[in-house]
Amino acid sequence: MSRYWSQITKRIKPYVPGEQPRDRTYIKLNTNENPYPPSPRVIEAIISEAGEVLRRYPDPQCTALRQTVAQYYGLEVEQVFCGNGSDELLAFSFLAFFNPGTPILFPDITYSFYPVYCTLYHLDYELVPLDTSFQVPVEKFFEVNGGIVLANPNAPTGSCLPVSSLRDILEHNLGSVVIIDEAYIDFGGETARPLLKDFPNLLIIQTLSKSRSLAGLRVGFALGHQELIEGLRRVKDSFNSYTLDRLALAGGIAALEDDAYYRDTITKVIATRERIASALKDAGFFVVPSQANFLFLTHPAAQAADLYQQLRDRGVLVRHFNLPRIDNYLRVSIGTDEEMDIFLGCITELVGAAR
Amino acid sequence: MSRYWSQITKRIKPYVPGEQPRDRTYIKLNTNENPYPPSPRVIEAIISEAGEVLRRYPDPQCTALRQTVAQYYGLEVEQVFCGNGSDELLAFSFLAFFNPGTPILFPDITYSFYPVYCTLYHLDYELVPLDTSFQVPVEKFFEVNGGIVLANPNAPTGSCLPVSSLRDILEHNLGSVVIIDEAYIDFGGETARPLLKDFPNLLIIQTLSKSRSLAGLRVGFALGHQELIEGLRRVKDSFNSYTLDRLALAGGIAALEDDAYYRDTITKVIATRERIASALKDAGFFVVPSQANFLFLTHPAAQAADLYQQLRDRGVLVRHFNLPRIDNYLRVSIGTDEEMDIFLGCITELVGAAR
Repeated sequence: MSRYWSQITKRIKPYVPGEQPRDRTYIKLNTNENPYPPSPRVIEAIISEAGEVLRRYPDPQCTALRQTVAQYYGLEVEQVFCGNGSDELLAFSFLAFFNPGTPILFPDITYSFYPVYCTLYHLDYELVPLDTSFQVPVEKFFEVNGGIVLANPNAPTGSCLPVSSLRDILEHNLGSVVIIDEAYIDFGGETARPLLKDFPNLLIIQTLSKSRSLAGLRVGFALGHQELIEGLRRVKDSFNSYTLDRLALAGGIAALEDDAYYRDTITKVIATRERIASALKDAGFFVVPSQANFLFLTHPAAQAADLYQQLRDRGVLVRHFNLPRIDNYLRVSIGTDEEMDIFLGCITELVGAAR
Repeated sequence: MSRYWSQITKRIKPYVPGEQPRDRTYIKLNTNENPYPPSPRVIEAIISEAGEVLRRYPDPQCTALRQTVAQYYGLEVEQVFCGNGSDELLAFSFLAFFNPGTPILFPDITYSFYPVYCTLYHLDYELVPLDTSFQVPVEKFFEVNGGIVLANPNAPTGSCLPVSSLRDILEHNLGSVVIIDEAYIDFGGETARPLLKDFPNLLIIQTLSKSRSLAGLRVGFALGHQELIEGLRRVKDSFNSYTLDRLALAGGIAALEDDAYYRDTITKVIATRERIASALKDAGFFVVPSQANFLFLTHPAAQAADLYQQLRDRGVLVRHFNLPRIDNYLRVSIGTDEEMDIFLGCITELVGAAR
């Protein structure tokens, strides 16, 4: 604690990103990165932008990337906003649409950055408990609120609400902004995009980090009514006019243009996920049905914290959250088939020994 | 104005970045971009990072880049923080070190993003008038304050305070953080870096946008006592853990490593600046002595707004700020010698005709 820190700096409880250890080479299944490389067209686009033009500022409005996203999803360019990953979009959105006072609602088990934003901006929030199978209790989101945030599919569970439930939530909340964080939507969940035409209070946030294998490039976008998008622009231009560099803009466009590559990648990830989920269940694990690129699992005869450490000792890195209700679960990102077979071999051996 | 905007979104007055027009090709002297390309080693480093590794998150702590900066300046790595351009560093710093209440002090004529941050964070501020030759009245910064921000060299004037004056200001303000925004320091100004060892309240912000020709890559850094750096980290990790992508990190390191290229570039820019300043004075202009990569000028017989438009009509884009005290000035970035000769030809012809 420093005498020079602001009240806010003293108050905040920063997010802790997943480890990026360097002590040895791990099979890295802890940060939901895609195991397949980005499209070769992304690399080409970046290389062709890497030249003299870098001396120039990027387009602060990200017009070309926004046009690409709009065209890809059949939206107007005024319905699209681009940011430095979905985290920055969330950071801007909490500031742009939520006020202190009436609480923001989100599940008790969800992306752990949401309460961090609330503390940063002094927003009140209320945790809505997921039910015992980690499903979202839809009607609990009909209560008075200052805004709603739902990761769909949820993290770290992988569960996804159907669009009919999202519609229900949106209809009951026409007075507040409902953010649907679709970071993992491309791995099989039902997107809220069809609801955009009916709900001016809907903001969808997506990212190229997971399904397009571009966690290292920092590109995300928000979809919503043009008044919400204009609100985000106002906040961004009061913070940092240029948050996407030229290489991220060029790579982002190419990633959306190479749709065949993307479909091939997610098909592989989904197939691996289903195969491993099934094998884990055969080995006695409880696995939450997942529509994301990770599995959330527990075993009746093993302590998750022990499994985490034992896997780590064997060179397999997964994520363990030491948090209420989920401290006996592990979140395991979907790697390549080879990586997942090694993971599966290790963990089934470990629970066999634990029995 | 939307019903869904927060009170903050309604209140803010976003910054307006310099135009990036596309209607025709301009000699672009309006956003202080470097006229020379980035170092070839930067391009090589980016290209070699543009591959499979992009599927992985970047290092959230920017360790390798921070080590490079620390080594370059003879500092400890704990004294260095990296951000997405100096604007993001300023945005984090205002939040990390300033509180509502006691006013933040900065000059009435300076980088116009400072009041934008104050409005965003509800900080009070007081504008300290520059004297009639646009110089900083040092003793006015001895008054009670909640923080001080000084662009040095100042923008859009180009004037630079000597280190002795900065020391004086720091000594009178041990209770508050003094931010020295050194975006333009590499073009001949005296850096505050030697003061870091004496003042735990000093934060210096620099960028690779100008002197390293990398406005399109978004890399800046802050230098200060490790407690200030830790404050910035707390704010960043409450906002967006990864604001620099892998390509920016790789390019940033290479830019600092190729010192010979950088020195060659700034030497050329400075020589051009001095030659053009002298020619403008010969043509009857008043030119503020500049230690930056731009000139701030006025002519007794011409209206700056007219000159701006007439230059624009001739394909030369400069910056005109329609603001009190400086509305009869133009800010002109230093381009190549060829570009500046065209600018010089146009503007001297225009004032000749205006006489």
